[in-house]
Amino acid sequence: MATFVPPNERNARSPHLPFGDHRGAPFYGKDVISVSQFSRTDLEYIFGVAKEMRAMVERVGTFDLLKGKILANLFYEPSTRTSSSFLAAMERLGGSVIPINEVRYSSVAKGESLPDTIRTLECYADVIVIRHPEVGSAEVAAKYSKKPVINAGDGIGEHPTQALLDLFTIKEELGQVDGLTVTMLGDLKNGRTVHSLSRLLSTFVVRLNYVSPEILRMPPELVEELKVKGVSQKEFDALEPVLAETDVLYVTRVQKERFESQDLYEKVKGAFVITPETMEQAKEKMIIMHPLPRVGEISMEVDDDPRAAYFRQMEYGLYVRMALLAMVLGKA
Amino acid sequence: MATFVPPNERNARSPHLPFGDHRGAPFYGKDVISVSQFSRTDLEYIFGVAKEMRAMVERVGTFDLLKGKILANLFYEPSTRTSSSFLAAMERLGGSVIPINEVRYSSVAKGESLPDTIRTLECYADVIVIRHPEVGSAEVAAKYSKKPVINAGDGIGEHPTQALLDLFTIKEELGQVDGLTVTMLGDLKNGRTVHSLSRLLSTFVVRLNYVSPEILRMPPELVEELKVKGVSQKEFDALEPVLAETDVLYVTRVQKERFESQDLYEKVKGAFVITPETMEQAKEKMIIMHPLPRVGEISMEVDDDPRAAYFRQMEYGLYVRMALLAMVLGKA
Amino acid sequence: MATFVPPNERNARSPHLPFGDHRGAPFYGKDVISVSQFSRTDLEYIFGVAKEMRAMVERVGTFDLLKGKILANLFYEPSTRTSSSFLAAMERLGGSVIPINEVRYSSVAKGESLPDTIRTLECYADVIVIRHPEVGSAEVAAKYSKKPVINAGDGIGEHPTQALLDLFTIKEELGQVDGLTVTMLGDLKNGRTVHSLSRLLSTFVVRLNYVSPEILRMPPELVEELKVKGVSQKEFDALEPVLAETDVLYVTRVQKERFESQDLYEKVKGAFVITPETMEQAKEKMIIMHPLPRVGEISMEVDDDPRAAYFRQMEYGLYVRMALLAMVLGKA
Repeated sequence: MATFVPPNERNARSPHLPFGDHRGAPFYGKDVISVSQFSRTDLEYIFGVAKEMRAMVERVGTFDLLKGKILANLFYEPSTRTSSSFLAAMERLGGSVIPINEVRYSSVAKGESLPDTIRTLECYADVIVIRHPEVGSAEVAAKYSKKPVINAGDGIGEHPTQALLDLFTIKEELGQVDGLTVTMLGDLKNGRTVHSLSRLLSTFVVRLNYVSPEILRMPPELVEELKVKGVSQKEFDALEPVLAETDVLYVTRVQKERFESQDLYEKVKGAFVITPETMEQAKEKMIIMHPLPRVGEISMEVDDDPRAAYFRQMEYGLYVRMALLAMVLGKA
Repeated sequence: MATFVPPNERNARSPHLPFGDHRGAPFYGKDVISVSQFSRTDLEYIFGVAKEMRAMVERVGTFDLLKGKILANLFYEPSTRTSSSFLAAMERLGGSVIPINEVRYSSVAKGESLPDTIRTLECYADVIVIRHPEVGSAEVAAKYSKKPVINAGDGIGEHPTQALLDLFTIKEELGQVDGLTVTMLGDLKNGRTVHSLSRLLSTFVVRLNYVSPEILRMPPELVEELKVKGVSQKEFDALEPVLAETDVLYVTRVQKERFESQDLYEKVKGAFVITPETMEQAKEKMIIMHPLPRVGEISMEVDDDPRAAYFRQMEYGLYVRMALLAMVLGKA
Repeated sequence: MATFVPPNERNARSPHLPFGDHRGAPFYGKDVISVSQFSRTDLEYIFGVAKEMRAMVERVGTFDLLKGKILANLFYEPSTRTSSSFLAAMERLGGSVIPINEVRYSSVAKGESLPDTIRTLECYADVIVIRHPEVGSAEVAAKYSKKPVINAGDGIGEHPTQALLDLFTIKEELGQVDGLTVTMLGDLKNGRTVHSLSRLLSTFVVRLNYVSPEILRMPPELVEELKVKGVSQKEFDALEPVLAETDVLYVTRVQKERFESQDLYEKVKGAFVITPETMEQAKEKMIIMHPLPRVGEISMEVDDDPRAAYFRQMEYGLYVRMALLAMVLGKA
C-alpha cells in the first residue's frame, strides 16, 4: 500500500489544554474550548493580538494573513451574530469560509455522528468553529479533529469567545481591568455569558456585584468557586445601591419563561430595565455592556449615550475572533 | 474611559438623499433606497460605471477593486436571483460576502429589532444589502447604519436596483432611451417593477403604452404623476394595436390569484402570452424584457429570438450592482 | 439595436460528450454528467491533475489557479458533504462560490423551470455544480447552460464525481488499479455509488466480488453489462469466503427500510458490519472504503486501522473536484 502522506498540518498539533508555553507561536494548533484554559498571561497575549487586529482593520480594512486558509463554520444551531462574526473575522484576514448552517437537513439528519462529521470537515478545512446545542460537544469535536477547533457555544456549557470579547471590551474601553467594580444585572442564574465572564474576571483584581431577582441569583457553587479564588462578591436585588460605584454594568435579559407567574415577572421586570434616567445615577466614566440580542432590557434612548458600549462590544468581538483564528493557525 | 476610535469609514458618510454633487466620488457613503433619488445625471453616471464593469468582466472576469471590503447580504425574504446577483457582483470585484439568508431562525426570531441587527452587521461589514418584506424597512436600516445600505426590495415598496438594471438593459441593447416607445404588458396594478421603471423612464423622452386586463391597470395616481411630468401615456387591453410600434416590450406575470374567478383569468390569460407568432408582428429591432421568474408569460420558443433580452437583462443586473457597490464604497 | 457582445467564454464550449481529444486543454468548457463519458485515457488524465492538486495542497494549502472564477453551487437537495467539498475545492483554487442551498424557498418554489434557473446562474457564474433529485436533471442543465455543468448527483441517476474519487482513492492508496480484487459489500441493489464505481472499474482489469443479502443483489442488467465487457464477477451472501483475497473492500449501508420485516433485517444486518475482528482475516495491504455517511456498518474501533481509508477518501474527493473544476475552466 502506498504510504498515505498526510497534508501539511496534520498531526502537528499539541493537545489543547492549557496554552502554557509562550515562546514561539504558543497557540498554534491548539483548540479553544473553555475559559478555564486561559491564564492571565494567555489573556494578555490574546488581547495584545486583538489590539493589533483592531489597529489593522482601522487602517487598512483587511489583510492577507490567513490567505489560503479555510474555516469550516459549523452551526448546529442558528446564531447569525456569532456565525457572521467568525465569517467576517476570517474574511478580514484574507481566508475563506465553508458556511454550514443547515445541519438539520444534512448527513447529520441521516444519523451521522459528530466525530464523523468533524473528520469529514477536517479534510476540507484548516480550522473548525462549532456551535452545538449539547454541553461537551466542542470537546468531543476537538478530540477527533486533527485541525484546531474553536467552541462557539455548546448549549448551556461554554461560549469562551464571548467571554473573551467581553473582557477585551472592558480592557479597551476602560484601559485596564484591575481595580474595577463590575455589576452584573438580570438573569444571573441561567446566563452562560455572566458565568464565563465572572470566571475570566477572577484572574484580575475586581469587585463583583450581582443584581438579580431572588429566583435568578448567581449559582451558589459559582459564587463559592470565585470566593475560594479571593474575589470580592456582593448580591443585591436592586441596581440603585451599587450603580454609583459601578465601572462596568453588564446587563442580561430577564426572560418571562423563567418565572412561575406572569404577575411575578411583571413585578420585577421594570427594576431591570436601563433608561436614560437610570444613567443619571451612573459615573461619567463607566460602560454598559450587553451580550445582545436585547429585547427591552436597555431602552433604545440609551444608545446614543457614549457609555453605551454594547454595539462596540460586537466590534471588539470581531478583533478577538480574528486574533484567535490567526493564533491557532500559527500566524500571530 | 479610553476614547473609542471609530473604524476608518465611520461617520464619514453624508446623508443619502439626493446624490447631487458629481465632483469627486459623488456616491461615496450614500445609500440606495429609492428610484426617486436619481437625477438623469445620476443615471448616466451609474450607467457609465456599469458599462465599464461590463467591459472589465468581459475582458478579465474579475478584478480587485473591492478587495478587502465585506458585504452583508441580508435577506429577510428568500430571493435566489437577487441575492446571487449581489453576491456575484461583490465577488467579481474581489470583495467578500456575509450571506444571511436564514433570518427567520436567528436573533430576529428572538425578537431583535431591525436597528439592532443593522448595528451589529455594520460592525462586521462595509456595506449592507437588505431585502425585507416591509415597506420602508430599507429606509429604517439606512437611518441607523453608519455604513451604506442598498435596498434590494422592501415589500410592495421599492426595488431600485431592478429598475436601474431594466433601464440599463434598454440603453445597452438599443443604444439610447430618448425617443423610444415602451410597452408594458400584464399586471400593471401590482407590479413593483413596472412602477419603478416608468418613474425612471419619466426622466427621458419616451412614449409609454400600458397593456393589461381591465382589473390590472396602472394605478391612476401613478399615471397622473407621470402626466404632470409630461410623459406620453396610453392604455390598451390588447397588445396588437401597439406591438408594431414598440421598441421595448416589458412583460410581467398575470397571477391567477389576482382574479375573482377562474373563468375571468382563463379568458384574459391567453391574450398576454408571448409566442413566436406574436413576435412576427414586432419590429426587427426591438427587445422583449421580463423581470423573471417567468411562469408561462413568454413561451420558451421565443428564447432563441435575438430580440429576447430577458436573460441578458440578468447579466446587465450584475454590472449595475457592481457599479453601485463600487460607487457607495468610494471606488468608482 | 446594439449588437450584444457575449462575455468571454460564452459560446466557446464544445458539446460535452465524450471528452476525447487530449491535445491542448481537452476538458475545457466540457460538462461532467456521467461516468460513461470517461475513457481510460480520460481517467488517467484526471487523476494526473488530481495528483498535482494533492501535492500542491500539501505543499502550499491553496493557490490562485481559478482566481476570478465563480462557481454556482446549486443544491436542490441538502448534502453538506458534497457541497462543502466543491466549495472547498473552489476556494483552495482561489475562486469564489455562490452557494445556493435554499432552493425550496426561492424562485424555483415560485414555479421557475430548471432551464430558466440555469440561464440566470450562468449570467453570474463561470461554472455550475448541480445536485437535483430528478434523474436527467444535470443533463438538462448542461443542455441549456453556456457554462460548464458538473453533476453532483441527480437522484438515483449518476454521481460521477463520487465514482471518480472512489477510483482515485484506490489508485493513490494501492498504487494501481489493474490486477486488484474489489469486494463490494452491503446494499448493492440500490447503491448508486457501487453501480457507478463498478462501471468505471470495468475499464481496468479487476475482479469484482459482490457480497449482499439475497434481496439486495447487484442489478442483473448491470452484471450483464459488465460481463459483456469481460469483467470477472462473483456473487456471495457472506464476506468470509472472499475477505482474504480482497484488495479493496467497499462497504455500503444496508438500510432497514429495504427489508419487508424487521426480523429479516436483524438477521442479515450483523453479517455486514465490519469490526476489528473482521479485519483480522483481511490482508495486511488492503483498504476499506465507504461513501459516508456511515451508520454502524463499520465499527468506530476500525477507524484507527491504517487500512481504514474512508476518511482519506473524502480528502481524495477534494483533489478530484479541484482537478475537474480546473479542467472544465481550461486551467489544467
